Amino acid sequence: MKDVNVIITGFGTVGREAARLLDERRERYRTRYGVEVRLVGVARSRTGCYDDQGLAAEVWEAFARGELAGDPACTGADFLTRTRPDVLIETGPSDYVTGGAGSVYMKTALAQGTHVIAVSKGALVADYPGLAALAKKTGAVLKISGATAAALPTVDLLEYNLAGCEAAVVEGILTGTANFVLSSMMEADIPYEEAIRRAQELGIAEPDPRFDVEGWDTACKLTIIANAAFGAGLRLDDVKRTGIAHLTRAQMDAWRQVERVPKLVGSIRRTAEGVKAAVELRLYERDHPFARVHGTTKAIRVETDAMGELLVIGGKSDPRAAAAAALKDLEHILQAFD
Amino acid sequence: MKDVNVIITGFGTVGREAARLLDERRERYRTRYGVEVRLVGVARSRTGCYDDQGLAAEVWEAFARGELAGDPACTGADFLTRTRPDVLIETGPSDYVTGGAGSVYMKTALAQGTHVIAVSKGALVADYPGLAALAKKTGAVLKISGATAAALPTVDLLEYNLAGCEAAVVEGILTGTANFVLSSMMEADIPYEEAIRRAQELGIAEPDPRFDVEGWDTACKLTIIANAAFGAGLRLDDVKRTGIAHLTRAQMDAWRQVERVPKLVGSIRRTAEGVKAAVELRLYERDHPFARVHGTTKAIRVETDAMGELLVIGGKSDPRAAAAAALKDLEHILQAFD
Repeated sequence: MKDVNVIITGFGTVGREAARLLDERRERYRTRYGVEVRLVGVARSRTGCYDDQGLAAEVWEAFARGELAGDPACTGADFLTRTRPDVLIETGPSDYVTGGAGSVYMKTALAQGTHVIAVSKGALVADYPGLAALAKKTGAVLKISGATAAALPTVDLLEYNLAGCEAAVVEGILTGTANFVLSSMMEADIPYEEAIRRAQELGIAEPDPRFDVEGWDTACKLTIIANAAFGAGLRLDDVKRTGIAHLTRAQMDAWRQVERVPKLVGSIRRTAEGVKAAVELRLYERDHPFARVHGTTKAIRVETDAMGELLVIGGKSDPRAAAAAALKDLEHILQAFD
Repeated sequence: MKDVNVIITGFGTVGREAARLLDERRERYRTRYGVEVRLVGVARSRTGCYDDQGLAAEVWEAFARGELAGDPACTGADFLTRTRPDVLIETGPSDYVTGGAGSVYMKTALAQGTHVIAVSKGALVADYPGLAALAKKTGAVLKISGATAAALPTVDLLEYNLAGCEAAVVEGILTGTANFVLSSMMEADIPYEEAIRRAQELGIAEPDPRFDVEGWDTACKLTIIANAAFGAGLRLDDVKRTGIAHLTRAQMDAWRQVERVPKLVGSIRRTAEGVKAAVELRLYERDHPFARVHGTTKAIRVETDAMGELLVIGGKSDPRAAAAAALKDLEHILQAFD
């Protein structure tokens, strides 16, 4: 049976869930694809762990808990060139300007023919076209479900379920945190600060929630989707952006009066001047499908030429779901493995 | 550039739309997959047309209109063994007991390594496991989007978008015609016969609508999905079935009184006694997502272990959309073509 060696970089909450799922699904990979999937390495910024025969679960669990210091040699680009895994799962923190460490890992991997599954968005936002070109050159596969709304299919939907169709419009509620905060403000009649606090208590919002509530998260996802599925060549700056942090209870009241529901919506549109993307606050009638997407639930709607319209709602937003989305990408790679 | 020769059997309305789309997308196939997709043959039950260099559009258009008689040698299993196309698109009428002509075409094709895209359901209902085993043996690909709710992703959703997850429940409004009739009865307060007549005038219902309104269409789709995505080994007889033909205006009135919306829903469920499938009339509260699926629109909902729930609504139901779903399958085959 062929071995498929996997390394997870930026090993945090999502990375650990991915490691756990890999473990749980080992038998599935054997039966369905005839391969032995082995987690051989995990890396954080300063240290990592490696075993060319596959890391024991106790090892990466202890490393994740901080009870095992790890080896300083098992991190950084060198780690990948030395170990040459079949698949890299990059789950680290994102740097949207330079691409950060994730970018270094992904470029190193793709250049040597290692397939890449991106969960972190930074490198993709900074230079998806460059990464895609690199992948094409070496024949490596670059998969990005985990970075583009995870359990809610987005790029998959456009590239696979609607393959062959032209999508004129894509629009969606793509940031669960922002939707949770906005839904709370509308439904529980609480101020922004209180809604944020509740989201933080539930582990939904980050200690610094700005990335999600100022529309950056949606804008990043749009940039990646537009470049991956529309070949748009957009930069993050090209995406018109708004957020929800400025909204007041009085504003919510006014919308309730006129029976409108505000939603933070990202959209991509083909126009005569090329592909345009924007994050906007839109007002929907109460029976519009988007008006009925509550809490951390996400949604996407696509209009096509030949297959009409598809609306997809759902897809969990927790670390396990994000990890499962990354491992969906792994299965797509395994389906083509030889 | 590598040629990909396609033959369409059971060449009727959907077949003609597939031929047109193949023509429109020829350049796309060249650019994206580096292949020259050529429609070399089309066949109906008694005659067909063939040109090993690719049929001219005038020829198959004339044949479709009945202005060209066609060649009696260009139909039946021999036609496929003699011409050995790369891909067969089978769009003929369905025989749900024996599998009919579609079954002969599909078995012949798969046995000789020709990839098969099924739009007709009969052969799949009669013996999906047999066809899948044949495909596995020769390395041919068997794709079935066009036969399982077409533009609404069903098997794709389970096998691709949710790859790696366990689906505990799948349920959906899978028959556009039945939903149109039922929606009309509820919303326009008209009797069943009148709703059927309107659906027939709009070209939505067949002259004999029983297959759709008695739940057979949904039951067939469930049988195929359960066997393809759950390995269930179900026969059509195993699917508990009901329809909507017995419903009265008085019944609709009673449901309106209690604010319930009836829907014909097909479901697949993993149970301790194996995979169970059923077509049932279900009553939903008015703000349930299924209650809001109107007209010929379809919907599917999947509950998974790791990625939560996905709800997909939409996907046109016309012949062009069915053809586009079949050509989506073609793209999946081309993606793996070498």
